[in-house]
Amino acid sequence: MTSSPTSLVDAVTRSFAQQGLMQAMGARLATVEAGHVAITVPFSERVSQQHGLFHGAIIGALGDTAGGYAALTRMPAESEVVTVEYKVNFMRPAKGRELIADGTVLRSGKSITVCRVDVHVADDAGNRTLVAVLQGTFMRVAAHA
Amino acid sequence: MTSSPTSLVDAVTRSFAQQGLMQAMGARLATVEAGHVAITVPFSERVSQQHGLFHGAIIGALGDTAGGYAALTRMPAESEVVTVEYKVNFMRPAKGRELIADGTVLRSGKSITVCRVDVHVADDAGNRTLVAVLQGTFMRVAAHA
Amino acid sequence: MTSSPTSLVDAVTRSFAQQGLMQAMGARLATVEAGHVAITVPFSERVSQQHGLFHGAIIGALGDTAGGYAALTRMPAESEVVTVEYKVNFMRPAKGRELIADGTVLRSGKSITVCRVDVHVADDAGNRTLVAVLQGTFMRVAAHA
Amino acid sequence: MTSSPTSLVDAVTRSFAQQGLMQAMGARLATVEAGHVAITVPFSERVSQQHGLFHGAIIGALGDTAGGYAALTRMPAESEVVTVEYKVNFMRPAKGRELIADGTVLRSGKSITVCRVDVHVADDAGNRTLVAVLQGTFMRVAAHA
Repeated sequence: MTSSPTSLVDAVTRSFAQQGLMQAMGARLATVEAGHVAITVPFSERVSQQHGLFHGAIIGALGDTAGGYAALTRMPAESEVVTVEYKVNFMRPAKGRELIADGTVLRSGKSITVCRVDVHVADDAGNRTLVAVLQGTFMRVAAHA
Repeated sequence: MTSSPTSLVDAVTRSFAQQGLMQAMGARLATVEAGHVAITVPFSERVSQQHGLFHGAIIGALGDTAGGYAALTRMPAESEVVTVEYKVNFMRPAKGRELIADGTVLRSGKSITVCRVDVHVADDAGNRTLVAVLQGTFMRVAAHA
Repeated sequence: MTSSPTSLVDAVTRSFAQQGLMQAMGARLATVEAGHVAITVPFSERVSQQHGLFHGAIIGALGDTAGGYAALTRMPAESEVVTVEYKVNFMRPAKGRELIADGTVLRSGKSITVCRVDVHVADDAGNRTLVAVLQGTFMRVAAHA
Repeated sequence: MTSSPTSLVDAVTRSFAQQGLMQAMGARLATVEAGHVAITVPFSERVSQQHGLFHGAIIGALGDTAGGYAALTRMPAESEVVTVEYKVNFMRPAKGRELIADGTVLRSGKSITVCRVDVHVADDAGNRTLVAVLQGTFMRVAAHA
């Protein structure tokens, strides 16, 4: 049995709701579809560094999470996902109203999934700037009973 | 003029104190010497994920920060450091009393510094287990006046 | 003075012709335009491993080179480019008639350029399969007189 | 059944001898022990670039291979190893008589192994300089019958 679209969205949504860090950041699941997950975070003091930008750690965490959930959408039901590794390039100052991480599956194998994540900031007018890119490897593990 | 050992420790300590995220995590500078910086974080709910382990985002943030400050110790006075990129492998569940990130400079050039960071957990008896390794590239920028 | 389109193509073409390894592999510059360079290699024994696939080392070398030349297209005249680092995921067996590396600039700064490279194989009918993805950091250096 | 030290050395030596690219480069297995493999390549025109240095592609290929074989030494008999991904930082010009890649296993799991590889050049007097560092992920696959 593989995930139906509904159970796929449910699985990601349920898991996301348990991520204390995502909740603490004010993160929101914006898109969940097969092979693609987008997560957004509004700017706030909680996610900033000393110069009023989104903190690099938040960018890494958001990118890792978007990649992991994108990977999960391609796995059979009763899967959990762990991050094997990722690599992230920080390219521009992350200054804006909202941070958006778009995770896309490039290759989904039996145990290993490779994802690419683009992280943009959006300004007040909604214009997006690419601030970081992440490439990561995720592994399927059987869900805890 | 290059940093004297005293001003080097001062520079890292001052910068670290301004990092709201490090303070919020309860992080502490354990070692600051030329080419090497160690940062520790005690386990708490603030830095955990749903299974009672240190959160991967905390591991990434701590590793990035230890690498960046290690790089800063090799730069001339009046430098600031930005992370160009890093890559992190998560190798074992990070379960323990304390997380320790040891950042070491491998190569310090005029603008680019390469660091390696080992991230261990320590248990109650102080035994350490390597849980993640990070390899990153950092760039010098002139400090804001 | 910045490169005109003509001098840009010239600069990449001249440099490529001096790359003994690229010549030995039978590699060819397929596209050179601002922010994008594609290089192709036909399958041969010289670039294969023991199972009749393109060798991973060839994939890495081709990806690195496509990224580096893409970076060079965004730099001022009299620039040379060096690879700071790259990360590559190997996703599928690279079996086919031709290997194609497409390097694209994501961010070009004064000294640092970040590129993404997609590596496909094409079969006899010209159908492409994505076999590897690379994300790399390149640095400008002033050209040798 | 796990590999005895003898069969471990045998397995790596046999596989290495089939690597056409390693043979073409003049590469030699210098060390094979549980969790550690070193490979060396003498300088020659075949492995150089236009400025008389070891070519970056050779450094990447040698590092990948040393990491992969180090991983293999920790796997059960009848295993083969594939590279999931690696990341390499090029830190200094690789000028010297010999290139040496030392691959060390950091973590060996059931399917995934993480290795770190240091790549040095040695000059005529045997003095070593660290020129590149690689961090990679390798996966076990059952050997072809």
